[in-house]
Amino acid sequence: MTQTLALTRAQLQTFLDGDFGPLGGDFTVDRAEMDGLTLRLKSSDKFLRPGNTISGPAMFALADVAVYLAILSRIGMAPLTVTTSCSIDFMRKPEAGRDVLAHTRILKLGRTLAIGDALLFMDGLDAPVARANMTYSIPPDFKRA
Amino acid sequence: MTQTLALTRAQLQTFLDGDFGPLGGDFTVDRAEMDGLTLRLKSSDKFLRPGNTISGPAMFALADVAVYLAILSRIGMAPLTVTTSCSIDFMRKPEAGRDVLAHTRILKLGRTLAIGDALLFMDGLDAPVARANMTYSIPPDFKRA
Amino acid sequence: MTQTLALTRAQLQTFLDGDFGPLGGDFTVDRAEMDGLTLRLKSSDKFLRPGNTISGPAMFALADVAVYLAILSRIGMAPLTVTTSCSIDFMRKPEAGRDVLAHTRILKLGRTLAIGDALLFMDGLDAPVARANMTYSIPPDFKRA
Amino acid sequence: MTQTLALTRAQLQTFLDGDFGPLGGDFTVDRAEMDGLTLRLKSSDKFLRPGNTISGPAMFALADVAVYLAILSRIGMAPLTVTTSCSIDFMRKPEAGRDVLAHTRILKLGRTLAIGDALLFMDGLDAPVARANMTYSIPPDFKRA
Repeated sequence: MTQTLALTRAQLQTFLDGDFGPLGGDFTVDRAEMDGLTLRLKSSDKFLRPGNTISGPAMFALADVAVYLAILSRIGMAPLTVTTSCSIDFMRKPEAGRDVLAHTRILKLGRTLAIGDALLFMDGLDAPVARANMTYSIPPDFKRA
Repeated sequence: MTQTLALTRAQLQTFLDGDFGPLGGDFTVDRAEMDGLTLRLKSSDKFLRPGNTISGPAMFALADVAVYLAILSRIGMAPLTVTTSCSIDFMRKPEAGRDVLAHTRILKLGRTLAIGDALLFMDGLDAPVARANMTYSIPPDFKRA
Repeated sequence: MTQTLALTRAQLQTFLDGDFGPLGGDFTVDRAEMDGLTLRLKSSDKFLRPGNTISGPAMFALADVAVYLAILSRIGMAPLTVTTSCSIDFMRKPEAGRDVLAHTRILKLGRTLAIGDALLFMDGLDAPVARANMTYSIPPDFKRA
Repeated sequence: MTQTLALTRAQLQTFLDGDFGPLGGDFTVDRAEMDGLTLRLKSSDKFLRPGNTISGPAMFALADVAVYLAILSRIGMAPLTVTTSCSIDFMRKPEAGRDVLAHTRILKLGRTLAIGDALLFMDGLDAPVARANMTYSIPPDFKRA
């Protein structure tokens, strides 16, 4: 593992806003450091589901993109890194009208396999709304930064 | 458990197209029977991620909505049923340009807890691209059909 | 994938009773076919936990060994195949005094990765007590049968 | 949530050594505090599997018992609290001949539902060997300390 980030917060945001594709515009990288990354899902009515709460798929997307970017921040621009599994628990009802924040942690960063997790919070509230465990496959021919 | 469906395929589709909210228009209920439901995610560029493949969040959404509808088909219109957990494995790369189908199975249908799973296929192909295990919480005050 | 089993039911049982190690004696391979394997955990007081019910670890062990053997039945004697993840839901309270049966399904059998699941039943009862999704890593230098 | 533990480290150890049942003797409670609990699985040949490594079921048992005890340390002696789900990733090969330690975290402590996780380490080594997410059902009629 490198001791400095391979991609900065600004570089990750540029990737989200450009090559990442149609989902990228919903997210802001609030923080990217060696010990973790914070990704923000901007509040929008399009993420609501019956009950005026944020949908499971929107929270899954937040957790997935957050850990994916955390991996890229460590190894460099390997966009073909793909999610291989996720286990997510929805622990509390998320309130509509607030952004959602994902705080990530990388637990393993192997040559072709990365494992991380994310804890999700409503912006301004203390109790986590969800937690997610994610695993990713890194292309074997990727040359790390 | 009732021996006939509480909601028909057509009633589920009407719910998707109306009260379900902004995500509903992406899905078609192909089949709804006592032994399971098939939900279709209509192919669209908006579901793509880097690598020209279907994004994890889009597949999560398909699995989640499919099992949710399968539960409603059995107990009646309880839209406030919420996902409490999901574990999903992405097993093969989904090809862009095809619809994705989720075939569901209900394994437990308790008073306030339902458990089901979904196997996801690209339309026309045999090998599953993902499997998902889902659990849901049914509102305790819901009166079943 | 081969179209016949690489290891028969009897060969798997011999492995369990010998090289598998101290856990092997608790299990019987009831069935091993191309479409799945059934493994039996023999009822014993040593698997009980408070509440006079079968412990979670005992059920995990049953699911894990069942899918592991199902993989070996397909690829041959690769004992260093290791579990990389498991997601298990305990759906109903298992009654003490009955054997537990795991019925497996293999969903992906790649060169170095295998994915399967197991549905667990108390012997003689219809409703599943648990379901488990398992992934395994196959040694890359293993030569298949 | 109480601000002091309902059960001390010594009380939890007494429970493990007595009423918990046959699995209890394999574990030592190293630490029990409001912010988490550390449980030790004592090294033994009986936990080995092919490859001279610690079996998945042994690590599952450690994670499961650790989070269970962490919940009891907070709410009091509710032994009929049962595991409802677990998702575990085995991240590195555990070396035989060392104890395994589980460090727990409680993420939700509701009236009838508790959610926690555990990170597992070989004693003396820095990189985690496994992580586990666990959910539990607390008997609804249990009166908390």
